[in-house]
Amino acid sequence: MERKGLLLVLSGPSGAGKGAVCKELQINEPSIRLSVSATTRLPRRGEVEGVDYFFLDKELFKKMIQNGQLLEYAEVYDHYYGTPRRFVEESLGEGLDIILEIDIQGALQVKEKYPEAVLVFIAPPSKRELEKRLIIRGTDSQEVIGMRLQCAAGEMRLAGRYDYVVINDEVSKAVSKIRAILTAEKSRPGFFNSFLNIFN
Amino acid sequence: MERKGLLLVLSGPSGAGKGAVCKELQINEPSIRLSVSATTRLPRRGEVEGVDYFFLDKELFKKMIQNGQLLEYAEVYDHYYGTPRRFVEESLGEGLDIILEIDIQGALQVKEKYPEAVLVFIAPPSKRELEKRLIIRGTDSQEVIGMRLQCAAGEMRLAGRYDYVVINDEVSKAVSKIRAILTAEKSRPGFFNSFLNIFN
Repeated sequence: MERKGLLLVLSGPSGAGKGAVCKELQINEPSIRLSVSATTRLPRRGEVEGVDYFFLDKELFKKMIQNGQLLEYAEVYDHYYGTPRRFVEESLGEGLDIILEIDIQGALQVKEKYPEAVLVFIAPPSKRELEKRLIIRGTDSQEVIGMRLQCAAGEMRLAGRYDYVVINDEVSKAVSKIRAILTAEKSRPGFFNSFLNIFN
Repeated sequence: MERKGLLLVLSGPSGAGKGAVCKELQINEPSIRLSVSATTRLPRRGEVEGVDYFFLDKELFKKMIQNGQLLEYAEVYDHYYGTPRRFVEESLGEGLDIILEIDIQGALQVKEKYPEAVLVFIAPPSKRELEKRLIIRGTDSQEVIGMRLQCAAGEMRLAGRYDYVVINDEVSKAVSKIRAILTAEKSRPGFFNSFLNIFN
């Protein structure tokens, strides 16, 4: 069967800049759809329901898990995060490209279910820079920042299970690498089945 | 071990425009080294010994096969073509990127020996266009062109075993796709082993 849409999964340690990369990527590739995750954590200042996340209470979230309505989910720092399955499957069915911006546990779950998913690990340029970004973001206490930094070291060890690693030193450079990855992945033979047959 | 150089293999049906793509690619990516193949066919007008090919007689070529001095070789239309092993292995050892412009039998041999080799199938945009290019090239009789076209159909069926397919409609567009593939392939986790460890 001819492949049509691409499922691009972006993840990486908290503070690596996934959000900024994702926003800039959507400006440059307006045809890509961003999947909206569900979460049980409280909204940060400025976050909008249905745009940044679907903010759910824990009871409802657990029901969605039980009903198989999540493509992946994870518990991170005492909150649940997950990807509603329906939107992703419908988009791919229509041949649209879709981005998931999810955490590492979730990314590896998606790869198991969809081996054709393209996993990109967004890495901070250094541990010191990661710490600086978390402090500037101003959403976490010093204690939580310490926990995130410790987690980051373990997460970096899982980068080897990703398809690609992109160091987010400058957002525009990281985005241009991801765009190259999209171009490359759209050149996989599975996208050319019917073309390759017209020669016979 | 940290990966350094990339082995890029370009192939595709005769007349797909591999040569033009390869030349333009080297202009845009001057750090890439082109491996020079050995062949037993006679030089075409303008071809230079040691630049386009090493032109060898059949006896010497067969000795190189026996001595294991070729990375791959193939017999195509009653001529031998092959890749001298030493140059490729030395370049990769130095961390340099290298292109092989070889035929399909050879490409698949290389992939078996070096699974990390990146195989790009250069496809003509249509059968009619392929025929036109072979006629314009003016190096083959009508009989040989007929044989090449028939071969092309079979070769297109092997494109599924390549990592990527690039349709050479316009050389500059094909080259920009191959450059994106290079950027993507240089983002494989194997190139970041030591970077990913500095967080621990």
